[in-house]
Amino acid sequence: MADTPTFAAVEEAAAFISPHLARTPLVHCYKLSQMLGCEYYAKCENLQPVGAFKVRGGVNLIGRLSPAERQRGVISASTGNHGQSLAYAGQLFDAPVTIYGPAHASNPAKVAAMRALGAEVRLVGRDFDEAREAVEREARRTGGRYVHSANEPHLIAGVGTMGLEIFADLPAVEALIAPVGGGSGICGISLVARHLNPAVEIIGVQSASAPACYRAWQQQRLDVAAPMTTRHEGLATRVPFAMTAQLMWELVDRFALVSDAEIDAAMGLLAREAKLVAEGAGAAALAAALKIRESLAGKKVVGILSGGNAPADYIARILQNG
Amino acid sequence: MADTPTFAAVEEAAAFISPHLARTPLVHCYKLSQMLGCEYYAKCENLQPVGAFKVRGGVNLIGRLSPAERQRGVISASTGNHGQSLAYAGQLFDAPVTIYGPAHASNPAKVAAMRALGAEVRLVGRDFDEAREAVEREARRTGGRYVHSANEPHLIAGVGTMGLEIFADLPAVEALIAPVGGGSGICGISLVARHLNPAVEIIGVQSASAPACYRAWQQQRLDVAAPMTTRHEGLATRVPFAMTAQLMWELVDRFALVSDAEIDAAMGLLAREAKLVAEGAGAAALAAALKIRESLAGKKVVGILSGGNAPADYIARILQNG
Repeated sequence: MADTPTFAAVEEAAAFISPHLARTPLVHCYKLSQMLGCEYYAKCENLQPVGAFKVRGGVNLIGRLSPAERQRGVISASTGNHGQSLAYAGQLFDAPVTIYGPAHASNPAKVAAMRALGAEVRLVGRDFDEAREAVEREARRTGGRYVHSANEPHLIAGVGTMGLEIFADLPAVEALIAPVGGGSGICGISLVARHLNPAVEIIGVQSASAPACYRAWQQQRLDVAAPMTTRHEGLATRVPFAMTAQLMWELVDRFALVSDAEIDAAMGLLAREAKLVAEGAGAAALAAALKIRESLAGKKVVGILSGGNAPADYIARILQNG
Repeated sequence: MADTPTFAAVEEAAAFISPHLARTPLVHCYKLSQMLGCEYYAKCENLQPVGAFKVRGGVNLIGRLSPAERQRGVISASTGNHGQSLAYAGQLFDAPVTIYGPAHASNPAKVAAMRALGAEVRLVGRDFDEAREAVEREARRTGGRYVHSANEPHLIAGVGTMGLEIFADLPAVEALIAPVGGGSGICGISLVARHLNPAVEIIGVQSASAPACYRAWQQQRLDVAAPMTTRHEGLATRVPFAMTAQLMWELVDRFALVSDAEIDAAMGLLAREAKLVAEGAGAAALAAALKIRESLAGKKVVGILSGGNAPADYIARILQNG
């Protein structure tokens, strides 16, 4: 496995991606702050061109491939946002992209978006990890560059650029809450926070219906047993990954687990009170903030709104019931 | 009537409101740009603390009242956003605020928000203009400061600060599209655009079901006849106003009229493709851009997403059908 990334790698990534991706806004959420009793800010990665933070990593990784590697293309497994990110970067840097997604658990809007960006999408397996195993076999067969969704220093460093923007906009931030799927996002942000201000509390969030990374962090080992039944595909990871688990052991202060229903409620709040469309993973930070609000009272808190690619009819049901 | 505001008044307003209101982001909308064939940016006033641009004007006006005026309080008519803006500013500067809204045409979410901000809300009359006439009678009776929703230099200068932010973020902007209710927003922005770059095209948008301001602009007179049946209350003005009509004659290049259904479709697109919740008036600029897309091809276009205070069930119905 490649070396884990460092703060310097995040700074390099920021310089590399800045001609290609605009900064995202850090929005002070007035009504949510009143509800929470803290100063709550959303880092709006839903406003990225592909609607999710991962595009920072995709651009940083594919943009740095050699001409020969770009020509052979990249292949990966994704429930949607990682794949859209690679597809977007592949289009930008003229590299063919093939994405395997779980046949019954892929978000149709995300699959359509990947195809619209020119990616070849193959739907295989019951869940993310079965698709991932299929793509690993295929990559060994064809020699294309296999891009893991977490064990990739350029992805982690790329998504870590969120952290640099947060500290530039709100140097006095006191707590950072980030959803954890494979863990690349929270690891990238934590590298920045630990370097710039080790006193900032780093809080990971998982669905209680898919707590593999939380258990790996808690038990400091990779071979944990965990259910995986969440309906929020951005959080639907069955097993933890070595590189991000290692970084989380070192860098994450605590975890909060939230139910899928609490995530739905947070999606509704973000749309109604903050005027922002979030997918489940994108709303998980707010769900966690509501759950642990006593410990955040009066603080400057940033929640990573990691993405907004929820199906329209799912959002509609939440707003109808809210 | 007071003097019409100038560019210098907008600059003063920016200095005055900046300690109280954060800048709003100008977001490049990647997917909408692809659909439109231009570079489309949304000025995200839905992310203001009260969910709409008018708060800039409210803070600029109420913040500059004398201590005695603040103590007597302000009184106004509003379908919602103007009232929320005054209520927010009243809370900030400790001035009591009374708002009259039309009994059958007020957005319940906006009424609740005004009350949550400490305003007294009285529901009177069939539409905005009947509520406005009632409040004008009441103001004459009590001596409170009556705040007109359009004929107010401090409101127009305040909301014009949007324009300064747009030019700071995108100096090469070529076209600005703004919804027109009473006209304060487009007038404020136009004062800035005409001063900084007279070549920028200023395009007003009204609902074809409430085209009073368009007709006043077209016919260069105030006594126009126009239907008023739009369901989008931010655009539901029955008669044009003297100060903003005068400025629009001087500053606006053209108008686009869009149907209420086209506005609904644009609300759906903003939520699905740009991850932003817009109310009808907030989506009107995108609806217009779609309608006049040929004339915008290849240009750098900013649409004013003026507010996001749509009822949740209204958004839900649009997303369900989309």
